[in-house]
Amino acid sequence: MRNRRNVKEKTKESDMKVARLRAEDIIYKYLPEEKGYPSTVVSAINYSVKAGGKRIRPIFMYETFRLFGGEGEVIEPFMAAIEMIHNYSLVHDDLEAMDNDEFRRGRKTTHVIYGEGMAVLAGDGLLNLAFETALKAFDVKDADTERVVRALKVLAGKSGLYGMLGGQACDVDAEQKKKALDIDELMYIHENKTGALIQSAMMIGAILAGASDEEIDKVSEMALLVGTAFQIEDDILDVEGDEKLIGKRVGSDEKNNKITYVTLKGIEEAKKDAKEMSEKAIEIFDGIGRENDFLRSLIISMIGRTN
Amino acid sequence: MRNRRNVKEKTKESDMKVARLRAEDIIYKYLPEEKGYPSTVVSAINYSVKAGGKRIRPIFMYETFRLFGGEGEVIEPFMAAIEMIHNYSLVHDDLEAMDNDEFRRGRKTTHVIYGEGMAVLAGDGLLNLAFETALKAFDVKDADTERVVRALKVLAGKSGLYGMLGGQACDVDAEQKKKALDIDELMYIHENKTGALIQSAMMIGAILAGASDEEIDKVSEMALLVGTAFQIEDDILDVEGDEKLIGKRVGSDEKNNKITYVTLKGIEEAKKDAKEMSEKAIEIFDGIGRENDFLRSLIISMIGRTN
Repeated sequence: MRNRRNVKEKTKESDMKVARLRAEDIIYKYLPEEKGYPSTVVSAINYSVKAGGKRIRPIFMYETFRLFGGEGEVIEPFMAAIEMIHNYSLVHDDLEAMDNDEFRRGRKTTHVIYGEGMAVLAGDGLLNLAFETALKAFDVKDADTERVVRALKVLAGKSGLYGMLGGQACDVDAEQKKKALDIDELMYIHENKTGALIQSAMMIGAILAGASDEEIDKVSEMALLVGTAFQIEDDILDVEGDEKLIGKRVGSDEKNNKITYVTLKGIEEAKKDAKEMSEKAIEIFDGIGRENDFLRSLIISMIGRTN
Repeated sequence: MRNRRNVKEKTKESDMKVARLRAEDIIYKYLPEEKGYPSTVVSAINYSVKAGGKRIRPIFMYETFRLFGGEGEVIEPFMAAIEMIHNYSLVHDDLEAMDNDEFRRGRKTTHVIYGEGMAVLAGDGLLNLAFETALKAFDVKDADTERVVRALKVLAGKSGLYGMLGGQACDVDAEQKKKALDIDELMYIHENKTGALIQSAMMIGAILAGASDEEIDKVSEMALLVGTAFQIEDDILDVEGDEKLIGKRVGSDEKNNKITYVTLKGIEEAKKDAKEMSEKAIEIFDGIGRENDFLRSLIISMIGRTN
């Protein structure tokens, strides 16, 4: 039994590596060249994007695109764009003015290397570059203009005030005002700060592949569950996880007096809720009636970390 | 003579006021409502956009649209978007991590009121909102999709690494490294930090009105001259201007040991070059062979401040 699970995990790991390298090849194609006058900000941008990471958003996007039979290169500019948006948010979150984090993924953060001002500009540059890049989808041979427009609207909407940035701003606001979050506010933050970009990734994949409105709605609902459960599990792992696996010190939320799903609802309830969300997500996936085993296993692995 | 000029100036001023109020009505329509969870960042965004200013970019956009016979509402989301981009750049430029300016247009800057972290987010939110807003042009009745796509590409391109942000990053980089700029670098900064957004405004107006490629090229060239001459005149006004008119202390560049067009080429040469650029811009305008007296007078007034 143990051997069998090991083999299965190894396969998954190598699949994951292939998917990650494919995504990185695409992302790197759209990164700017370090030449000409603004070379320092370009270097800061490339430093932050090349720092690594699981590339989970472009992978989700690509696999959802394939789930609905998507073909061709129209997905590529959007894969690069969503990773740029994710990275801009990390660069700005790490700023002295925000979380003041000096390390990420074992490397010094952008503001530590390039200075706070240049890190602000690198984040701005990445966000702008994300839209510049996504707009290139219009130029892809046989691209469906209507689908590209719809995908662009999701990209912009889910990263803005009524998506990722709204969640992040609510989090920062509560911290500044030393305000105790209630469960509704915390869910709002989890759904937006983490959930919205996963939603964006999977919805764009579905839209560009030509999924029906009904299918896109199901993907949206499923992705939100995945993103939210993932964030709740992060809260759980902070209490009882393996430091090496989660990449930060266990118990750091408690140390920072951070209100989490676990502090509000208790560890057992948190586990139960995350499990229910995961099961519901897989139920929706299976209900869509399309096949992509890798995507299915990816969803399970993302949200099944504490079960 | 004096009386006549006064009357003429008064008319121009009232025209300018009408244009500014029209632009503001449109911009305000697209600002977010201060409700729901992210209300603080929304409030910070609205505070910064409503601080005033000449609204020169949306006005240039609208008037260039009219120059080429543009009609309808397709221009409006873009007018709001370019002002949002301009304002995001001001909010981030004013940050402690950048210029650390505490006042702008006689009011406290966004980071002073809302804190450095929230001001970073407000700028990010404005940049994101600019693209969300511009994308609404696709929904305007009878909008020409191809023109909107082209206008979006100009909007994104001219505000990014190879436009405004590139110029700003080069400026910040030189300051951080205490590097003496040469004239080529300074021209690069002026053309991009200031010129690119004026270019963007006028090019988008021309594109959305259906101007020909040749006409769009002429507009691009003219707008770059206007933007660059405007910035050189700013450098001149810093040395010999009226503090009330330029809104900052005369001689502040010298005090900050800032390298400007004046410090590099001398005041007489600077005046001569700005005048030549202005004349060239008006020559191109007249060569286009279309009529918009208000736009013509606007170009002259923008770049004729030291002549």
